[in-house]
Amino acid sequence: MIKKIDHIAIAVENLERAIETFKSVLGCASETIIIEEVASENVRVALIPLGESRIELLQPLGDDNAIARFLAKNGEGMHHIALETDDISHETERLESSGLKPLGSQKEGAGGKQIIFLHPKQTNRVLLEITQEPH
Amino acid sequence: MIKKIDHIAIAVENLERAIETFKSVLGCASETIIIEEVASENVRVALIPLGESRIELLQPLGDDNAIARFLAKNGEGMHHIALETDDISHETERLESSGLKPLGSQKEGAGGKQIIFLHPKQTNRVLLEITQEPH
Repeated sequence: MIKKIDHIAIAVENLERAIETFKSVLGCASETIIIEEVASENVRVALIPLGESRIELLQPLGDDNAIARFLAKNGEGMHHIALETDDISHETERLESSGLKPLGSQKEGAGGKQIIFLHPKQTNRVLLEITQEPH
Repeated sequence: MIKKIDHIAIAVENLERAIETFKSVLGCASETIIIEEVASENVRVALIPLGESRIELLQPLGDDNAIARFLAKNGEGMHHIALETDDISHETERLESSGLKPLGSQKEGAGGKQIIFLHPKQTNRVLLEITQEPH
């Protein structure tokens, strides 16, 4: 079962400036924002809480990663939507049985979560991530 | 105060096909989906519940409206994020005092909600809607 929106990810050129912008938009305090570096993906990430979800700001480190390529092609903007489940193996099976194909294989994301992406060609060009908290 | 993500809006060419896709992705039943026509915006809308938020699928009616122009320029994909508040007047003042400019003026959206958009040039090219339930 898909429970909720885990996060909406936005690709940005400058993480500090984007954090200031979204702090202003959401009216939230700096203490609530988590900033981390995900070395495996070559990105810096800011997670800003919003209800049961989060806004995830993504700044690439260097030019050789998915976010840098997205920015070079599209400029800044919405990058993907992550949906939370309690059972990613079951959901992946369910999605595959509906004909929806994963993009790559299941892997560990930030915070030890298990994640998998779906191919955006099948989902109206929206890149969707399915994510499960570590047990 | 911004409380939560009200919805994520996705521009689509064919509403019925997109509904089938997102029913498969989210594993939800047809009965939970609301379909309506917003004549003032020349769009057909499907609202699919997801946790405290919704996925909003938008199909243009005709060529002379914002969603038709978005599709012609960008193709299908994420269009905007709507954020819910209990007091849109207060939030608009707060946002303006932070230097964030509305795009157009406050108006009535689907379901009698009061809505206003922010200029995406100031928010990392993410079109943001602020929305308040009717009192």
